[in-house]
Amino acid sequence: MPAPLPPLAVSLGDPAGVGPELLAEAWHRRQAGDLPWFVVGGAGLLRAAAETRGFDLPLAPIGAPEEATDAFADALPVLGDLDGAYRPGAPDRDGARLALASLDQAASLAAGGRAAGVMTGPIAKSRLAEIGFNHPGQTEFVAGACGVAAADAVMMLAGPTLRTVPLTVHIALAAVPGALSADLIVRRARIVARALVRDFGLARPRLAIAALNPHAGEDGRMGGEEAAIIAPAIARLQAEGLAVSGPHPADALFAPRARETYDVALCMYHDQALIPLKALDFDAGVNVTLGLPTIRTSPDHGTAFAIAGKRLADAGATMAALRMAADCARRRAAA
Amino acid sequence: MPAPLPPLAVSLGDPAGVGPELLAEAWHRRQAGDLPWFVVGGAGLLRAAAETRGFDLPLAPIGAPEEATDAFADALPVLGDLDGAYRPGAPDRDGARLALASLDQAASLAAGGRAAGVMTGPIAKSRLAEIGFNHPGQTEFVAGACGVAAADAVMMLAGPTLRTVPLTVHIALAAVPGALSADLIVRRARIVARALVRDFGLARPRLAIAALNPHAGEDGRMGGEEAAIIAPAIARLQAEGLAVSGPHPADALFAPRARETYDVALCMYHDQALIPLKALDFDAGVNVTLGLPTIRTSPDHGTAFAIAGKRLADAGATMAALRMAADCARRRAAA
Repeated sequence: MPAPLPPLAVSLGDPAGVGPELLAEAWHRRQAGDLPWFVVGGAGLLRAAAETRGFDLPLAPIGAPEEATDAFADALPVLGDLDGAYRPGAPDRDGARLALASLDQAASLAAGGRAAGVMTGPIAKSRLAEIGFNHPGQTEFVAGACGVAAADAVMMLAGPTLRTVPLTVHIALAAVPGALSADLIVRRARIVARALVRDFGLARPRLAIAALNPHAGEDGRMGGEEAAIIAPAIARLQAEGLAVSGPHPADALFAPRARETYDVALCMYHDQALIPLKALDFDAGVNVTLGLPTIRTSPDHGTAFAIAGKRLADAGATMAALRMAADCARRRAAA
Repeated sequence: MPAPLPPLAVSLGDPAGVGPELLAEAWHRRQAGDLPWFVVGGAGLLRAAAETRGFDLPLAPIGAPEEATDAFADALPVLGDLDGAYRPGAPDRDGARLALASLDQAASLAAGGRAAGVMTGPIAKSRLAEIGFNHPGQTEFVAGACGVAAADAVMMLAGPTLRTVPLTVHIALAAVPGALSADLIVRRARIVARALVRDFGLARPRLAIAALNPHAGEDGRMGGEEAAIIAPAIARLQAEGLAVSGPHPADALFAPRARETYDVALCMYHDQALIPLKALDFDAGVNVTLGLPTIRTSPDHGTAFAIAGKRLADAGATMAALRMAADCARRRAAA
């Protein structure tokens, strides 16, 4: 019999955002059979955040991740002494430092195998940048903690109806055509295909590759990247035996019948991947990092400072991110 | 009492595509109170197309648009002698010539006021190009028939849950940033706002303007078009008293709650407008041309040669396009 899985590590996110209240709510709505999880720090502000949602949150201070497994049923396990004041909607540097320390420890525990994976709460990059955080985002930070090159940590957005991967992310639209290459597409597609087998239990994942130009360029009349870059990448992937199709006109790719023909859509730029995901799966989208030696998920929304502490934020994406991390960790452990 | 509205003119579309069968089906499913419409040509192939859908189609040959009003209840009115062989899935030059002649006459009847508007069936641009059609699409052709500059005929996609306007359309993605200007946005936004008042009955239409770059450029860190082009255009439009907001990060703009905050989203490029529309409203999307002296609509799908004649094509978008043309024509006539 295999050893039981360790719990999931969870980072607070920015304490002035919706992260703490959504973690409190997610524990409050836990179900039998959930893989236990613990938060790194923030006992006082988690309790205060729960009060804004209208319930008392029992907390279980723990000194090591393993203690969370037994504690989780009756109280939210909190690891360590990190804490701060709860000032929803009013981000400051103390909060940014707390968010970064929580992220750092949670990622390290997952990278080191003390946690089965890490679910990261939402941060404000511009706030963290003020205190010296120089990663493009949490994805790259967690990759670094795992010793994986940022280029090999692949962001996937997953909701109940759709999975998408943006092949370029936080760059200007004008820079997208120049950032694409057949090598990039091939490298990322391999990582995606492997992860969908190992972590998502798909025997033969079907990858649909989106075109860059309208109508897939219409035979070169509206852009040449399909013929020069995307089609050759698809041919190489197919030659490796992967189930890859495209380049597909992006506007048709997310219509209901088209969505039934693939397991994940690889997109050429941020909004091509995020527009359909948020249109269709807004309150349940999960950001998952593929290609890491551990599991990392995150709710696909920001800090939402404007509604923090106002009982307005929906916990659906946080709960979905916790569930997805647990499901992936269990599949990997069982393989 | 105002004179009764004339009927709508309808063009066949490519006879080898799904156009004829969807027109037959749309007449078959007509309802009391529908504004009557007539097809320009194609009696024989409309009858043959109806047979593939499993019903007999009664036809009423007419010599003038006005005759359609009385004939419509009992038979599909067909104007003129244009006709051809019904060979679904097998497009040829004869079919392209027929499609163009039908479009030309239908557009002229609407432009001249003999029809209350025109609903155009789907054509294959590459097929029409072979016989000398040199317009980017039907939108520009109909604009020309009306004596309107192509730049002032604005394409809007409208479905039950969303309206979007692509400010650039059939150009490579790499060419999009260079094609945008504050003047372009202002000029098109004014046309959109006027049309939503006059043709769609909105007292004060709310226009949401999408950003070009991810996260609306994040204060210039990922592209400068928001500050240089889009925000100044919005300021000019607001100064004119229009209800205009933005630039909005495009990925969040089509999520359910965001959709409630505007009546139309103005988008910077083709797929930004078409991805959410087709994801959300695939079988009911209507392409409507704003800024013309007549009404023009079209179902938001292509010829679909692969499924023509196979009883697979959904008539929802064709019926929605006919209904929208009728509604717009009635509002304009009542104003």
